[in-house]
Amino acid sequence: MKTLGFACTSADAPLAPFSFERRAPRSNDIVMEILYCGVCHSDLHWARNDWGWTVFPAIPGHEIVGRVIGLGPDVTKFKIGDHVAVGCMVDSCQHCDQCEKGEEQLCREGNTGTYGGFDRHTKEHTLGGYSKHLVVREEFVLRMPDGLDLAKAAPLLCAGITTWSPLKTWNVGPGSRVGVIGLGGLGHMAVKLAVGLGAHVTVLSRTPDKAADARALGADALLVSTDEDAMAKAADGFDLIIDTVPVKHDLNPYMPLLDVDGTLVIVGQIGPVAEPSTIPLVLGRRRIAGSPIGGIRETQEMLDFCAEKNILPDCEMIRMDEINEAFERLEKSDVRYRFVIDMATLQAA
Amino acid sequence: MKTLGFACTSADAPLAPFSFERRAPRSNDIVMEILYCGVCHSDLHWARNDWGWTVFPAIPGHEIVGRVIGLGPDVTKFKIGDHVAVGCMVDSCQHCDQCEKGEEQLCREGNTGTYGGFDRHTKEHTLGGYSKHLVVREEFVLRMPDGLDLAKAAPLLCAGITTWSPLKTWNVGPGSRVGVIGLGGLGHMAVKLAVGLGAHVTVLSRTPDKAADARALGADALLVSTDEDAMAKAADGFDLIIDTVPVKHDLNPYMPLLDVDGTLVIVGQIGPVAEPSTIPLVLGRRRIAGSPIGGIRETQEMLDFCAEKNILPDCEMIRMDEINEAFERLEKSDVRYRFVIDMATLQAA
Repeated sequence: MKTLGFACTSADAPLAPFSFERRAPRSNDIVMEILYCGVCHSDLHWARNDWGWTVFPAIPGHEIVGRVIGLGPDVTKFKIGDHVAVGCMVDSCQHCDQCEKGEEQLCREGNTGTYGGFDRHTKEHTLGGYSKHLVVREEFVLRMPDGLDLAKAAPLLCAGITTWSPLKTWNVGPGSRVGVIGLGGLGHMAVKLAVGLGAHVTVLSRTPDKAADARALGADALLVSTDEDAMAKAADGFDLIIDTVPVKHDLNPYMPLLDVDGTLVIVGQIGPVAEPSTIPLVLGRRRIAGSPIGGIRETQEMLDFCAEKNILPDCEMIRMDEINEAFERLEKSDVRYRFVIDMATLQAA
Repeated sequence: MKTLGFACTSADAPLAPFSFERRAPRSNDIVMEILYCGVCHSDLHWARNDWGWTVFPAIPGHEIVGRVIGLGPDVTKFKIGDHVAVGCMVDSCQHCDQCEKGEEQLCREGNTGTYGGFDRHTKEHTLGGYSKHLVVREEFVLRMPDGLDLAKAAPLLCAGITTWSPLKTWNVGPGSRVGVIGLGGLGHMAVKLAVGLGAHVTVLSRTPDKAADARALGADALLVSTDEDAMAKAADGFDLIIDTVPVKHDLNPYMPLLDVDGTLVIVGQIGPVAEPSTIPLVLGRRRIAGSPIGGIRETQEMLDFCAEKNILPDCEMIRMDEINEAFERLEKSDVRYRFVIDMATLQAA
């Protein structure tokens, strides 16, 4: 089918309207009209070719909310008109041990990215959610629960699940002591979700400026990481620290904050971190881990949980033609806390 | 009581005979005649003041096997003549949550080291097992099970428990896939204990030279870490890697070997490791952890397990007056795999 997107044709070109073909639905595909799409920092990296493997023309977008407008003949889970969502992946092998456990994000063959991946049948380059339509196999389509505000829910599909998954992996619940480093798209969701799960949540920040923001998100406390006395007093006080900082940084100041068997889980930086000392690891049996998005079943659980608890990202709605400006602001962390594109504003040039 | 040890009086002095007083037994103390003492790399660090906080005169030694020759009036667990052992700690607060869980090594107040610690009552500096006698509260005394060769068992008290504890923390058993980096005092025990627990055990070595040694210890395989093809083939193949390397090194080559949720646990290096990349952590939900010795109950379980399975360290017995030469050889890793001092050879100058 013919559709319209917003694409970049090279690393230094701005995003602009772009007409292209989506595949005709296969037997188990749904066709989705996209209503909203969140703007993730990865979208910016991808558009600018920061990772060195972008295929142009590129269409970013993997926080996608929309409506079913077409169905392959074998689709059983959805019907026309259903409100649905798609996150960071659109396919996986579906037969390895990880897929069978519902951990498609860890598929042994690698999952197929919503953008920047390659269709497992046609080998065509996948194009993301900054577009009018998407065609996806039903196994990778989430159901939007009733009552979840469609206009705000999109960031749950990446920022939400990326922080929800470690909260579940490390069994966070009432009584858990959770720290969150970095208060951006991921960090603000980590706070809201951990609070929703009943944890005692502390935002870790280099300055006290974030105290009001932290409180507004529901956090119980702000710990200023440059305040040595406060940091010393907080030693051994956390079960899990979710580190959303997306650049190279030093983990060492945070490690003594973990209690015995506590974990600092990295969900932001993909690349090097500064030399860690093993002293807090060995002496306190502490751990450093990483975590990628989450599986489809887990993503659905997270959406249902957010509907039940009325948890939504803090969004700033933009028009599609404001995306280049939004990228510039994103680079300066000038957004509280996630841009969402109203896809009704996408028009041909 | 008057006794004799082998002490160093400064960081550059050789160890030499040294007469000193052990405290009179308190009500819950046992008095132990030391028969054997293992030589741990920490002993060397301590004697040379490598950590910068050695108190001289210093007597190293925390792999201690002996016989009960005296009892405080309230001792209930031991009687004169019992074969007993003491490891790396001789006291803890005994009332914090960690002590109550039997994790005295993680005591909230800090445990009292067998050497280099400070007695919780008198504040006197503790002196270790390179000596004729030791006075220790009974809660920190292990029972040597019948059938365990006293002359070889001493290294179990540090090298044994330091590798046993992570095997238990990470639930190693039949079917577990365990890797061991470094084949020294700790590494060779990690192999023997993991094999004893029914795991499939692979020694990771920079050269193929260690193949025969690995086999002799019971390992199932040797993986040469400089062989890129072999390393790539081994990706995702380990549940737990025990890293016994005692110097700064690079963890990055090993991380892709871990399966999803797998852990590399550091038990050797106390200090920095090279800059890790978070890519294998995030993409595979892998973990880096540390682990210190183990608790008293866990140490007793390990001794009982070794007696039942007939697991013993490979030892080279030395005379007390050979300790300075042994330290030099230890620095060059010229021992398979642990020196043990026959304490009957300790004589006044």
